[in-house]
Amino acid sequence: MRIAIDGMGGDNAPQEIVKGCVEAARIIDDDIYIVGMEDAVRRELKTYRSVPGNIKIVNATQVITGEDAPVKAVRSKKDSSLVKAISLVREGMCDAVISAGNTGALMAGSLFILGRIKGIERPAIGTVYPQADGTPTFLVDAGANAECKPSHLVQFATMGSIYMEKVLRVENPSVGLVNIGTEEHKGTAVLKETYKLLKDSSLNFCGNVEARDIPYHPADVFVCDGFTGNNILKLTEGLAQRYFGLLYDMFQQNLITKMSAVGVMNQLRELKSLMDYSEYGAAPLLGIKGVVLKMHGSSKSNAVRNAIIKGRTYVEENVVDIISRNVDQYEKNASDESKIGADADKKEE
Amino acid sequence: MRIAIDGMGGDNAPQEIVKGCVEAARIIDDDIYIVGMEDAVRRELKTYRSVPGNIKIVNATQVITGEDAPVKAVRSKKDSSLVKAISLVREGMCDAVISAGNTGALMAGSLFILGRIKGIERPAIGTVYPQADGTPTFLVDAGANAECKPSHLVQFATMGSIYMEKVLRVENPSVGLVNIGTEEHKGTAVLKETYKLLKDSSLNFCGNVEARDIPYHPADVFVCDGFTGNNILKLTEGLAQRYFGLLYDMFQQNLITKMSAVGVMNQLRELKSLMDYSEYGAAPLLGIKGVVLKMHGSSKSNAVRNAIIKGRTYVEENVVDIISRNVDQYEKNASDESKIGADADKKEE
Repeated sequence: MRIAIDGMGGDNAPQEIVKGCVEAARIIDDDIYIVGMEDAVRRELKTYRSVPGNIKIVNATQVITGEDAPVKAVRSKKDSSLVKAISLVREGMCDAVISAGNTGALMAGSLFILGRIKGIERPAIGTVYPQADGTPTFLVDAGANAECKPSHLVQFATMGSIYMEKVLRVENPSVGLVNIGTEEHKGTAVLKETYKLLKDSSLNFCGNVEARDIPYHPADVFVCDGFTGNNILKLTEGLAQRYFGLLYDMFQQNLITKMSAVGVMNQLRELKSLMDYSEYGAAPLLGIKGVVLKMHGSSKSNAVRNAIIKGRTYVEENVVDIISRNVDQYEKNASDESKIGADADKKEE
Repeated sequence: MRIAIDGMGGDNAPQEIVKGCVEAARIIDDDIYIVGMEDAVRRELKTYRSVPGNIKIVNATQVITGEDAPVKAVRSKKDSSLVKAISLVREGMCDAVISAGNTGALMAGSLFILGRIKGIERPAIGTVYPQADGTPTFLVDAGANAECKPSHLVQFATMGSIYMEKVLRVENPSVGLVNIGTEEHKGTAVLKETYKLLKDSSLNFCGNVEARDIPYHPADVFVCDGFTGNNILKLTEGLAQRYFGLLYDMFQQNLITKMSAVGVMNQLRELKSLMDYSEYGAAPLLGIKGVVLKMHGSSKSNAVRNAIIKGRTYVEENVVDIISRNVDQYEKNASDESKIGADADKKEE
């Protein structure tokens, strides 16, 4: 297997990206193509006593930053690390591409270069939502589509279920629709219609899920529009950080509290690691005709290493093919597909 | 001042409601009208050695439950505690009404019986979002309107700012728009338009606020549609409960962790009380022509007591009048007001 990495994407590129690649290359045999400014990548590689032979470099003279407008950047920076890394998949040179860079640009570039799976109206970002019980749950959409139609949400549910089953190894995963009440008639018109469609589908639909219950693992796959999903992820991240910060301050107050901290140190560390989503690898861009994975912008080498190693399962299990075969039932929506695609492109500019 | 309480609303009615009324009546001189089934209320009152003279009872033979469809319940249960309590305000017998009952029914009943403030298209639920820094922030809408137009959101911002200033005593409160990015061009079409309107308004608008930052007090008033607001509140509640539960389990593991718990007991208790929204009283139904306050369905006597005591400020500061005078700038939206009102009523059925 050959995996392309955007060597210049993210807050800690290229240093942490290269480090993660070297770590991964020492564990797996697959070829890892670091795409980026050759000088900068080589400089990083020189800091290691030995560089594994399965690390390859592909030169790219441009960089897309977090501030760049996605569609414009993808069109104008043809020799950027992000565009070239995606192109390696298109050309059949690589089986997967991973980036910690500009999310919008990664989505736009993947749409332009790799295209959508037939029958999927809108690709979505799926992401692991860690649970304190130690088993992952999965949230789609995490932020690609602020507004969604019922058919989009049903497709997210289908793709999420397949990913959950094949990559995260949860059999017959249950699907919950994020809503402001558990009753069928709750929420917006879009959600009421989605509820009906999910109930009639062959998915393991378990009804509406309230945000209050999300930390208690009420379903394996949480389905929502990208606005809601992004809010849920960010609020969870913000609150976890805030609480751990307060806890830290609490334990630092005086000699007695400091001694108390020592007594629960292991438990605290274990709790923190349970909530660490970087353990589960990167977030797939579901619905793209190819394996594209997005890492958090602030990813460190361990997240990069995990993204590469876990990304292999996504390729090996042929998730893209399975999604293609399973959206056939939504073919009726495919007629206005091209129009919707055009709208989406315009919107991203 | 005279305050009407729905004696039968909420999970712990009438016991905890009556208890909270008795506690409040011992602190303040105002008359407290408990509206409910007279026998049941009297039975509760009999458990106290002495009942303060400012406790009054108004009989109501019906009860609206949490399962009742709001509009239907309000129309068919004319002699319910909820409807009668609101009517006491309409008749000038009381200055405020407080309920822990069916939120939709309280909103529908208030709309039918008291009406909307002229110029306000949609009343909204405002609620305190407690911050670990010990000062409250305020979130509008907490769940009354799942979908909103930009003018609705601007009105929520205006009402929230006035409530924050007059009742929660925060001078020139800053207003943040909840969005999935801080840049002006982020989010849905509705949010982009709202951003422009808020920027041009006389409010102390500080831009978009991401959910990640909400626990760090980035603004005093958070504005969003009721779907987003409800999700934020419930997820915050769920995560806080989950984390405190995990912490509790962690401290219970063995003798060493139990000893550690003793060392930080006071700090933990302080932290928990900082996050307790019941300290700040009940949530106002902003935009209703009258003082209507909603308590959490699971309210205990201390929440009831606080709701009554804090509710007095809402009346004393003439918040309803101030809102009436300050929405004049949105008069241009008032032309299609009746149509929108009709839509809303239809929707609630």
